[in-house]
Amino acid sequence: MSGLGPERLSLNTATVRERWNLSQCIDGCVRHGFGGIAPWRDKLQEMGTSAAARSIRDAGLEVTGVCRGGWFTENGVLDAEVLDENRRAVDEAEEIGAACLVMVVGGLSADSRDLPAAWRLVEDGLAATLEYARTAGVKIAIEPLHPMYAADRACVNTMRQALDICDRLGEGIGCAVDVYHVWWDSELDSQIARAGSDRLLAFHICDWLVPTRDMLTDRGMMGDGVIDIPRLRCMVEQNGFSGLNEVEIFSELDWWRRDPDEVLGTIAERARTAC
Amino acid sequence: MSGLGPERLSLNTATVRERWNLSQCIDGCVRHGFGGIAPWRDKLQEMGTSAAARSIRDAGLEVTGVCRGGWFTENGVLDAEVLDENRRAVDEAEEIGAACLVMVVGGLSADSRDLPAAWRLVEDGLAATLEYARTAGVKIAIEPLHPMYAADRACVNTMRQALDICDRLGEGIGCAVDVYHVWWDSELDSQIARAGSDRLLAFHICDWLVPTRDMLTDRGMMGDGVIDIPRLRCMVEQNGFSGLNEVEIFSELDWWRRDPDEVLGTIAERARTAC
Repeated sequence: MSGLGPERLSLNTATVRERWNLSQCIDGCVRHGFGGIAPWRDKLQEMGTSAAARSIRDAGLEVTGVCRGGWFTENGVLDAEVLDENRRAVDEAEEIGAACLVMVVGGLSADSRDLPAAWRLVEDGLAATLEYARTAGVKIAIEPLHPMYAADRACVNTMRQALDICDRLGEGIGCAVDVYHVWWDSELDSQIARAGSDRLLAFHICDWLVPTRDMLTDRGMMGDGVIDIPRLRCMVEQNGFSGLNEVEIFSELDWWRRDPDEVLGTIAERARTAC
Repeated sequence: MSGLGPERLSLNTATVRERWNLSQCIDGCVRHGFGGIAPWRDKLQEMGTSAAARSIRDAGLEVTGVCRGGWFTENGVLDAEVLDENRRAVDEAEEIGAACLVMVVGGLSADSRDLPAAWRLVEDGLAATLEYARTAGVKIAIEPLHPMYAADRACVNTMRQALDICDRLGEGIGCAVDVYHVWWDSELDSQIARAGSDRLLAFHICDWLVPTRDMLTDRGMMGDGVIDIPRLRCMVEQNGFSGLNEVEIFSELDWWRRDPDEVLGTIAERARTAC
């Protein structure tokens, strides 16, 4: 499998979040020949969703996802606040024509050690949001996060666990596969095959650095770490995923400090050589 | 399920490794009424394995495990150095009458991104070591490490993955279940049931802190984090594990800095209230 041209890339706005607003991200994608973009909701709301939708459409960019819905465990109950917030996220995903709404489902509730209770809250929250999303024609993508985030960000941590939820909830829900979160999993191959094209809704790339100096914001540029990205990309593509490769790099110590044009240039280069 | 008395505890020497040698650990266990000990090999070799065996026996302590064999991927091939080192670890485990030799299997080989190759090396290394261990009457315990260590410490990261290996290799091999590494796993319950008493060879306790400030040395004292230790202990005991609860806390920032007698006193107290 040969490397990727920039037209096969989507920029997740988190990658340059410290220096560019959404309008600058859109212009940057065009300038570097990227095929798509995936805005975080803070950037979307800052620009205004309608203006963003228009600008992204005029730029000819696909929207590979909106980050993010979820956080179902935040209040310890599925209250109106949590459910309304997720409905708003669905509305925004619909308005900008996103391929999916990415779900970071939430970890343990405050002062709780009850992981099974968190799992139940998450599944109920996903079910409620999915019902609404179906009426809006928006697909819900559960993003299994790395198990090191189980306590404080997301208690869905493997493809198997996410797909078990999808199977129980039915149509319109699938997974966002981020190599950073799932690369270690001995079941990855079989679970991606199980997912198939209906459930493979997004593919996110970056790299796992050794050592990792910070659990949240020390992700690497593709090629600088240990993930065999071509192997993983091959897995999802052979199982029916045909979307863009969304680049999401949280990097407080390195890439967030650089000129975003340098970052996008490096991404385009590494896509050819390391993906 | 009520809390644990100190006679149900074993001290993994890593918990006080910065301040006590093995002889002091043995005396400390007796002083605090612990039922067992689990020495790391550096402490064992420092004291001399024969002297250690005698001293532990005279103190009336069980040996819940020896830490550690493994690191099969370290040289990129299973060479004589790696296999000999593991045979020596088996010999030491035999000499001190350990319930098992704990295996930290190794991560990716240097400059490699080939995780399937690492898995193969590990399984071949385990098979070779198991063959030797059977003749010595020593049980091999694969310790699935948290997925955040997949690159640099152990590429076996779930109970399912470890038990799949056990099933392929047969008798005399099982798992060391450390709550820190596996607490997040949605399959934990079913995989512990699958393991049963034949494969449940050790149970390690500590806690997962939020936030975790260091990926290796910021484990918490039981009760200070988010792991539901009583639930997990109940799981292993209901599935036939009847060994001691081995306390292994890596804590550069906190417990390693304290007087070990304070640490053992706190462990005994938390065993009653938080385990």
